[in-house]
Amino acid sequence: MKDAIALHKDEFLEELKQYLSIPSISSLSKHKEDVQHAAEWTAKALTGAGMENVDVIPTEGHPIVYGDWLHAEGKPTVLIYGHYDVQPEDPLDLWETPPFEPVIRDGKIFARGATDDKGQLYIHIKAVDLLMKQEGELPVNVKFVIEGEEEIASPNLGPFIKENEEKLACDAVVISDTSFIEKGQPAICTSLRGALAMELTVKTANSDLHSGTYGGGVPNSIHGLVQLLDSLHMENGRIAVEGFYEGVPEPTEELRSEMAEIPFNQTRTKKDLELEDLFGEEGFSFQERVGIRPTLEINGITGGFQGEGLKTIVPKEASAKISCRLVGSQKPEAVYEAIERHIEAYKPVGCRVSLHQFIKADPVAIDSKHPLIQAAASAYEEVYDVRPLFPKEGGSIPIVEVFGRVLKAPVVLMGFGLPTENLHAPNEHFHIENFTQGIETVCQYFKKI
Amino acid sequence: MKDAIALHKDEFLEELKQYLSIPSISSLSKHKEDVQHAAEWTAKALTGAGMENVDVIPTEGHPIVYGDWLHAEGKPTVLIYGHYDVQPEDPLDLWETPPFEPVIRDGKIFARGATDDKGQLYIHIKAVDLLMKQEGELPVNVKFVIEGEEEIASPNLGPFIKENEEKLACDAVVISDTSFIEKGQPAICTSLRGALAMELTVKTANSDLHSGTYGGGVPNSIHGLVQLLDSLHMENGRIAVEGFYEGVPEPTEELRSEMAEIPFNQTRTKKDLELEDLFGEEGFSFQERVGIRPTLEINGITGGFQGEGLKTIVPKEASAKISCRLVGSQKPEAVYEAIERHIEAYKPVGCRVSLHQFIKADPVAIDSKHPLIQAAASAYEEVYDVRPLFPKEGGSIPIVEVFGRVLKAPVVLMGFGLPTENLHAPNEHFHIENFTQGIETVCQYFKKI
Repeated sequence: MKDAIALHKDEFLEELKQYLSIPSISSLSKHKEDVQHAAEWTAKALTGAGMENVDVIPTEGHPIVYGDWLHAEGKPTVLIYGHYDVQPEDPLDLWETPPFEPVIRDGKIFARGATDDKGQLYIHIKAVDLLMKQEGELPVNVKFVIEGEEEIASPNLGPFIKENEEKLACDAVVISDTSFIEKGQPAICTSLRGALAMELTVKTANSDLHSGTYGGGVPNSIHGLVQLLDSLHMENGRIAVEGFYEGVPEPTEELRSEMAEIPFNQTRTKKDLELEDLFGEEGFSFQERVGIRPTLEINGITGGFQGEGLKTIVPKEASAKISCRLVGSQKPEAVYEAIERHIEAYKPVGCRVSLHQFIKADPVAIDSKHPLIQAAASAYEEVYDVRPLFPKEGGSIPIVEVFGRVLKAPVVLMGFGLPTENLHAPNEHFHIENFTQGIETVCQYFKKI
Repeated sequence: MKDAIALHKDEFLEELKQYLSIPSISSLSKHKEDVQHAAEWTAKALTGAGMENVDVIPTEGHPIVYGDWLHAEGKPTVLIYGHYDVQPEDPLDLWETPPFEPVIRDGKIFARGATDDKGQLYIHIKAVDLLMKQEGELPVNVKFVIEGEEEIASPNLGPFIKENEEKLACDAVVISDTSFIEKGQPAICTSLRGALAMELTVKTANSDLHSGTYGGGVPNSIHGLVQLLDSLHMENGRIAVEGFYEGVPEPTEELRSEMAEIPFNQTRTKKDLELEDLFGEEGFSFQERVGIRPTLEINGITGGFQGEGLKTIVPKEASAKISCRLVGSQKPEAVYEAIERHIEAYKPVGCRVSLHQFIKADPVAIDSKHPLIQAAASAYEEVYDVRPLFPKEGGSIPIVEVFGRVLKAPVVLMGFGLPTENLHAPNEHFHIENFTQGIETVCQYFKKI
């Protein structure tokens, strides 16, 4: 198999470049046609790989691509999930090469979506393609469900899974959308934080006012907003919203020692990211803060005059984007309501506040001892010569919880990315070595189960 | 004189329309030639009015226009200051008619610069023009100094005044760039707040980080910024910066009752501006807060992701524009240093902060009892049948302090605008009635002194 992969590598990369050149940014309406194009490209690739019943299924948003091959009688069924949509490219000026003109440099392929998730998804398409071409059949039954709305929190995939419980029935859901601990150290993620995102807007007047005429005498929307935002955290890094920590489990000694084993080089992280210092919730390590503790982060803020120089106004409106990561049995709805109550209670004089919710996802925990997960670990070990670790990821893949709950199957988070591959940032890339070894690992996995 | 003005009114308005059609926006480099054109137009108008030694004096920025008439032996010399530059027109879509195509509607002339300051400046040019034409001479000596950089804080006029102390020597500086209290109630402003503006930037990392991978474990530049900004005010509306209030005089009982006399309709202001409530420093009235108390306002804020929807990042950088209004003997330098010390002292963990200063201007207080100011009051009274009030303006005209200090002359702030004339906003206009009565008032004033 290794030889076959080596033989076809250049051809596979050319195809992947084509895939990556489609600007399938799901969050921007102007890219709607590109997203549709990427869906059709994905369907064609599945057909080319020998999949049957391939379908581009319309939704209220972007389509879901389905395809299957169900002729391995008596063998388990694996549902492979991935997404063909990508993050916006901005800030464009920080890209060394254009985000949708894929190039290969230093053994990496650079493009928006390279690691998140077109490159990782393409591993599976090429794995079944190769197996079909070599053996004429697959060692397992396979169903592909590939969506175009992962980067906008999968609004239509959840309902689709619930409505198609039978069609999607499987023994394991396999997803490659996570990453190694570091180069050479694979990982199967066994925990994902939940997510909750919202926008907070503060309005004071019906227009910006001259700060000479009104300054000091009327409420200022930015003052109101910073006061509210600052009230969300305590100085020790804890979140100050009453009820926020409900459902957050106290970590056991066992979990804490497991977390402590995850490699983390503080000096290097500080140097690489040019951080003056680390900062987070008092009483927890970095690994715990980003892995098993909930967070509340302000992701963006805007208000008033932002051009060159100065405009002496009292701004009428300001807003901020806020997102939370949730753990344990925290419920997004309950946390949202707690934040709503907090905002209402701390609302400064003269401020009209409104809160708008974007995203919510429950936290997920996966049992690393499940045989279909242990089999994945063995597949990695054969290819990479090292046993994967089972980290708790800080990120969220909202749909994972739905897959696990509705299909009652273990979710195998077989990531092939690296944490340094700039996902959601300029110069996103994917290591070609992990692309080819990924194909090998997936083939091994299918043969094992 | 009234008859002569009525006779020439339409001709004067046609000229003013020409003046207003020049887009002399000093802050935008693409309008450099338009600003030059407006300077030349101004010089021509001075020559046409019989002024001598008319000169368009180049500076490092936009030119200063000078002209004089000094043949009123034994009579006082009045220096008339104004500016021929205007504010940018944006937001363009809110203008009912194009900003540089002046039109007359309902007794008002609409255009950018109509009230600030071309229309008010043109009052003086037409006053001397009429007097010269009627009498062949002026009752006072006159010097015009008209700049093209008022809207960008007069960077070259201060040095020009200092270098030309002798040439500009005078008994009073007359400026028409302020406004009435309301229609029919003229005002001579006797106090201007000083100004200080800066930009505060907080940086944490060298790139935006994924909030799933790093959220909760690294400093967030927006958290740092809102913490710093929120620390600048106390809940009771006072500014929390140590030393900020140094030089701010406690208002005397006399001043407080003077302030209380300035008409202010709280219900109407709240309704007009759609304010839920007023807010400001505890213990002071609205008129005091905007007139004789110092302020610190955040004029703009920006950081992280600001597009549609969400991007789950920990933002690397955030910044805010801040401006202060100063009173009494507050010194801009000292206040800036106090803010710098505050920022340094309150700097959150992991934040690199920098502060950049834009503008500074000392506060100005003018003695309303000066005979050359009382004479202006009498001139208003004759034309408008009501004695002007002597309000304390909340705004700043940075150059006023320099004129007063360097030339050692009282500054007579003889405004003819109305506070509702949308200066610095769309649909700026000027009441034609105040244009014509303004010419009459200025002629009366010159005759009186």
